Amino acid sequence: MIGAGNVSSHLAKAFDKTGKNIIQIFGRKTNYARSLAESVSSGFITNLSKLTTEADLYIVSVPDNILTEVLEKINIQNKLIVHTSGTVEMKVLQKTSENYGVFYPLQTFTKTKNVDFKNIPVCIEANNKINLDLLDELAKSISENVKHVNSEQRVTLHIAAVFACNFSNYLYTIADEILEKHDLSFDLIKPLIQETAEKIQTHKPIKAQTGPAIREDYQTIEAHLKTLSKFPEFKDIYEILSKKIINHKKKK
Amino acid sequence: MIGAGNVSSHLAKAFDKTGKNIIQIFGRKTNYARSLAESVSSGFITNLSKLTTEADLYIVSVPDNILTEVLEKINIQNKLIVHTSGTVEMKVLQKTSENYGVFYPLQTFTKTKNVDFKNIPVCIEANNKINLDLLDELAKSISENVKHVNSEQRVTLHIAAVFACNFSNYLYTIADEILEKHDLSFDLIKPLIQETAEKIQTHKPIKAQTGPAIREDYQTIEAHLKTLSKFPEFKDIYEILSKKIINHKKKK
Repeated sequence: MIGAGNVSSHLAKAFDKTGKNIIQIFGRKTNYARSLAESVSSGFITNLSKLTTEADLYIVSVPDNILTEVLEKINIQNKLIVHTSGTVEMKVLQKTSENYGVFYPLQTFTKTKNVDFKNIPVCIEANNKINLDLLDELAKSISENVKHVNSEQRVTLHIAAVFACNFSNYLYTIADEILEKHDLSFDLIKPLIQETAEKIQTHKPIKAQTGPAIREDYQTIEAHLKTLSKFPEFKDIYEILSKKIINHKKKK
Repeated sequence: MIGAGNVSSHLAKAFDKTGKNIIQIFGRKTNYARSLAESVSSGFITNLSKLTTEADLYIVSVPDNILTEVLEKINIQNKLIVHTSGTVEMKVLQKTSENYGVFYPLQTFTKTKNVDFKNIPVCIEANNKINLDLLDELAKSISENVKHVNSEQRVTLHIAAVFACNFSNYLYTIADEILEKHDLSFDLIKPLIQETAEKIQTHKPIKAQTGPAIREDYQTIEAHLKTLSKFPEFKDIYEILSKKIINHKKKK
């Protein structure tokens, strides 16, 4: 496992549970690498020159912007190597080995929260059928939701995930800050957040849309914008998203 | 029940379940009023001049922008009247009756999806202690989560709800459209949406933030913006929300 961050940690633990033998963890920070290595009973290194050549598979799970730099330091004699990025094209790996692929789990990972891999879509891609079959088998050992996805589809999935997950979570943060400033508990809107996410499991999101914008209730929107003048950094987000919802409705 | 839309329908059914006697439904559209009336075994009217004077409580659940107009047509001789709006001040009711209040269930309601009121926060307010006690008792008959909230706090709650629910749902819609255009199923990101909403039940949202923006991964952001040039109507939302997340992080 090359990388000791969120994705790598959750993957390593999931593989460890299914009895896979994790030989070595590489992490740039000693404490991250050691802590993950301890939890899956593997060795660890903080320098890629010490990378084992004994592994059957190398999983590179590092931020996209250092991936190329990390790959340049890897010497694995054509062993199978994959990255876990949602956005980086598979072919960046072709300089590192003749056998390569992608192993992208479509989920949001936080160190302090366990996830059950069973339902997580794992999107795989490989340079040939043999490697694809290997990754397919590996992915199926942790997930019941394995998809073969090419690099172009994968970036689309990642963008959709950024909207639906990262940006939604930021909207929760805004709600939290607004409530906190008024001494109201964020707990009050937790059932609402839960229901909103549950509703789209069975309803197309556009059919589940509620609120002042979709009703074109300009009076409420104006009242909200007035209150939001205390929060100029959030007011423009309220304005742009309300406008988009109204325009979206008119376009249909 | 004055109104036969989403909020009114869900409330009427919840009250009916607890054995409350719903005498009359008013709806501007005959089919909506009749259908709701049938499901709770009540009468219905489509003209407010026929409003019963026999009820103990009148619940006005209509869009904010027609509330004043509806109230002007109501003649109930100082019976207790409440509205269910998140944003309208309680005192708009004082011309209609000497006994008034607010009964605001903080949830997103869709006609085709049942909700369990038990965990829904019901925010109440009243013009005096007697009426507040009456509303408190009524609210507690359907919910275990009853809060006394004044008009100013209520609009804050409503704004937070718009961000966390209405806007998040719109982001799900964007994800859905992007995936659809690329022949990818929205089902693929449903586990992610579920996990994102679940995570904040136990984690402060800012601590749960993941994705390219919070990592300041400009390379991925650029790659996404390039792909999003096919979706100009969504590209600016990606840009503004990414910037806000990056600035938010720097501010802390």
